[in-house]
Amino acid sequence: MKYVRFRDPAGAVRRGEFENGHVQFGNESYSLESDEIDVLAPSDPSKIVCVGRNYAKHIDEMGSDTPDRPLLFLKGPNTVASHGDTVTAPAGKDRIDYEAELGVVIGEQCRHVPEADAMDVVEGFTCVNDVSNRDDQQEERNWIRGKAFDGAAPIGPVLATPDEVPDDAFVRARVNGEVRQYGSLEQLIFPIPELIAEITTYLTLEPGDVIATGTPEGVGPLADGDDVEIEVEGVGTLEHSIRVP
Amino acid sequence: MKYVRFRDPAGAVRRGEFENGHVQFGNESYSLESDEIDVLAPSDPSKIVCVGRNYAKHIDEMGSDTPDRPLLFLKGPNTVASHGDTVTAPAGKDRIDYEAELGVVIGEQCRHVPEADAMDVVEGFTCVNDVSNRDDQQEERNWIRGKAFDGAAPIGPVLATPDEVPDDAFVRARVNGEVRQYGSLEQLIFPIPELIAEITTYLTLEPGDVIATGTPEGVGPLADGDDVEIEVEGVGTLEHSIRVP
Repeated sequence: MKYVRFRDPAGAVRRGEFENGHVQFGNESYSLESDEIDVLAPSDPSKIVCVGRNYAKHIDEMGSDTPDRPLLFLKGPNTVASHGDTVTAPAGKDRIDYEAELGVVIGEQCRHVPEADAMDVVEGFTCVNDVSNRDDQQEERNWIRGKAFDGAAPIGPVLATPDEVPDDAFVRARVNGEVRQYGSLEQLIFPIPELIAEITTYLTLEPGDVIATGTPEGVGPLADGDDVEIEVEGVGTLEHSIRVP
Repeated sequence: MKYVRFRDPAGAVRRGEFENGHVQFGNESYSLESDEIDVLAPSDPSKIVCVGRNYAKHIDEMGSDTPDRPLLFLKGPNTVASHGDTVTAPAGKDRIDYEAELGVVIGEQCRHVPEADAMDVVEGFTCVNDVSNRDDQQEERNWIRGKAFDGAAPIGPVLATPDEVPDDAFVRARVNGEVRQYGSLEQLIFPIPELIAEITTYLTLEPGDVIATGTPEGVGPLADGDDVEIEVEGVGTLEHSIRVP
């Protein structure tokens, strides 16, 4: 099953089934690109737990070392942006990067989840762009200015149940229609159950919380006005544009 | 004015005036230590923006360098604990530290706040313990396991309007009744208006969000069963105990 959360013409927030490019709720059916609805992120996360350095070739391109356990960082609710939004980067930065990622949407409150049970707490998968302000990320210890600024986490539009997504699903970024990143979930250094077990050793996850599972190789800069597409096989495509003031 | 947020005997969340150790709401008056009420954190923050290395003598004791702009990090809503709670640290760690801090509670949604207007977005001040798991903090790039675990931010119990708090208010930590930390707000390297201006250059703050302004010298380890008191002059005293499994 696939779902899209949206604000309907009356202003109510609904979650409809998504099929053939249309969102269905009750008797109504809307095209995903319809002006009648506002497509929202699949959830209102209390936090987004992100994973850095989770694909070997991305670690190589960044000149980083492979971590011996997941490199974790946080984005707050202020970072959430949605399909179709224009994200405004912090002003005066030289390099704002896209990072295509699979997002895991949590379905229930949980702590100390064993790896073997981890998929039980997953509601579904979505697309995330871990938008990164490299100017500040490279200078600060914790990536707040670098990765937790307003709009730094476009998420959505589709929430797909795990059965929709193959184990080797591709994760792809396109900028202005041109493919820039391409990887497979099979390449994850720390697979999803390990991430959930490790994160919940320390933090309670809430329904709607999102885990951004890391980005494959091919990250690169965005210019003012660029259109970004983040696609995860079996899920769908998140599109947004960027303003780089 | 001073306020305390609490759950009343009927289970409703209220905010009452706090005077002479008692919380008043409507016709009712409760002692802060009464079993009739549950004292809550002063707000439900969507995020806690924390500041590291903001007192020179603490920087010395940690062998760190003075940052040229505020060192920021995040704690999510899962970290909130309240007056009277027992915080359970992550299991199997050698060193769990207290860090007494002044907390700034934000009163309105804001972004790009100039320093000159920063106090306009402040609802009041409170006490925060930035509980820190040094084992992991020293090993990880972003302080998630180290500082964003469940219960890592006891906050409260009093929200005091800024007029209640002198510019040179002391910030003090006691463990089992013994003073361990003592500093003054005058020693802040980056004062509150600078912090608000810098944070809102990148992040929108929401009503109830908390800025933890950094800790003075004297941080140190907690043992299982220790009682911690964080006092800010003009605000009050936050008390909690700790379980170190």
